[in-house]
Amino acid sequence: MNKTETPVTIIGLGLMGQALAGAFLKAGHPTTVWNRTASKADQLVAEGARLAPTVGDAVKAGSLTIVCVTDYQAVHELLGASEVELDGTTLINLTSGDSAQARETARWAEQRGARYLDGAIMAIPPAIGTAEAVILHSGPQADFEAHESTLDALGTVTYLGADHGLASLYDVAGLAMMWSVLNAWLQGTALLRTAGVDAATYAPFAQRIAVGVAEWLPGYAQQIDSGSFPAEVSALETDARAMAHLIEESEAVGVNAELPKLIKAMADRSIAAGHGGEQYPVLIEEFSKPRSA
Amino acid sequence: MNKTETPVTIIGLGLMGQALAGAFLKAGHPTTVWNRTASKADQLVAEGARLAPTVGDAVKAGSLTIVCVTDYQAVHELLGASEVELDGTTLINLTSGDSAQARETARWAEQRGARYLDGAIMAIPPAIGTAEAVILHSGPQADFEAHESTLDALGTVTYLGADHGLASLYDVAGLAMMWSVLNAWLQGTALLRTAGVDAATYAPFAQRIAVGVAEWLPGYAQQIDSGSFPAEVSALETDARAMAHLIEESEAVGVNAELPKLIKAMADRSIAAGHGGEQYPVLIEEFSKPRSA
Repeated sequence: MNKTETPVTIIGLGLMGQALAGAFLKAGHPTTVWNRTASKADQLVAEGARLAPTVGDAVKAGSLTIVCVTDYQAVHELLGASEVELDGTTLINLTSGDSAQARETARWAEQRGARYLDGAIMAIPPAIGTAEAVILHSGPQADFEAHESTLDALGTVTYLGADHGLASLYDVAGLAMMWSVLNAWLQGTALLRTAGVDAATYAPFAQRIAVGVAEWLPGYAQQIDSGSFPAEVSALETDARAMAHLIEESEAVGVNAELPKLIKAMADRSIAAGHGGEQYPVLIEEFSKPRSA
Repeated sequence: MNKTETPVTIIGLGLMGQALAGAFLKAGHPTTVWNRTASKADQLVAEGARLAPTVGDAVKAGSLTIVCVTDYQAVHELLGASEVELDGTTLINLTSGDSAQARETARWAEQRGARYLDGAIMAIPPAIGTAEAVILHSGPQADFEAHESTLDALGTVTYLGADHGLASLYDVAGLAMMWSVLNAWLQGTALLRTAGVDAATYAPFAQRIAVGVAEWLPGYAQQIDSGSFPAEVSALETDARAMAHLIEESEAVGVNAELPKLIKAMADRSIAAGHGGEQYPVLIEEFSKPRSA
């Protein structure tokens, strides 16, 4: 069978599930779908999908089943029904959840004879099927590689490692970066707008800084992995003085200062713990401690 | 006179002032220096600098004076002394301060007959003289352009606009981006380390996300400038559900959740204000409001 003809099953036809099924159909894969509300399959059926009458029937249609539903509880309810035979199936779960749920669901599925990969979709539904859609997978490498060429229909498909929790962890880590870049840009935009600078004028400057700082990360990572943080570029206590400027300027021009204050609070705690003469990545110690308020 | 021979005066020889003077000397400019503790000039004098006996004498040595001292109060004390004649001088103030101090010092210097530019150095002293050192200037454009070729000796010299407060605002905005990228990376690194992933493995992923998101900024800026935030990519209330995942995952694996909580708190406030169906840049309204705790 040609790789473009691998049969695929999609369980769950929310906006994302519909996009996944549509991308497989477009790539020429025989695609079976199932959804609790069957009418959500109408458009896909018109495009050539087969609507299975039951989850069990859908899973039987091929050797690769992708599930993308509301939450992990729904995964267990749907696939745990007595009519569903998972033995011999490769199950890829693209439902949003956390690393513990992924690991627990892997054990549950494997006990039922399935091969299990946990995944996370870093894309919005309209991007599915384009290179822009990054789809993360974790679990046994052989199971990923067996289906990689089929999964390629969905976008930029990435394998992270054997630990089933990795897809969820990378996903939320990436989201933290996304919102942090956006928030820092909004903080700067708010500051500059007080001087009549419009957002479009400031944006390329913010972009250059973000890209420039991102280039430091691999080098800074070496400090974390070695557990040694010499102040080659700048000492944390010098940074903290500039953080005070950021807070003062934000307050003086009347914009939100919560983000600047959190930045300084983290640094101040690290300085209080004796790390003022070390370099920024030493803050990994503060970020690694449980603290919520 | 050849452009490489423009005389320059540097007031203040901390690490940064020494680096500035060294870069001018290296570029062939006759360089006069002054510092309260004269011995800090020893190395520069050995490299060809002239040590002026007083601030007034230093300022008289040429038509361009750069001041880089502890704070704006020191600028006023040093240059406000009765022996100092600012009339006809171009004064560039690279001392760290806020936008209000810059605007106030511009008025003060202009009243005394000086041309005044306010600047900010986005670099550490060893980078001065390389393209990596970004030096921001704001004030009258003609005064910047008259000295741009001389200032080029310092690094990547940038002009921002006529408002003297801009250099300080861009500086702290850029720093907010720098620390935010680093903090988001540390958050992600802390999350991934709980699964045994080392920092070097995670760093390139974080870098790609930061660069990818930074590319959205010019487009998102158009939403802010138009004041219209249609949910073309994602609605804020959808983002907020993913933010909850980030908090839950951080707490579940036992890492710091303060940054995730601040991210969600800002979004929640915007949703409470009725913007849940709009797109992320609508948060500019929250970032533009004074709020400190």
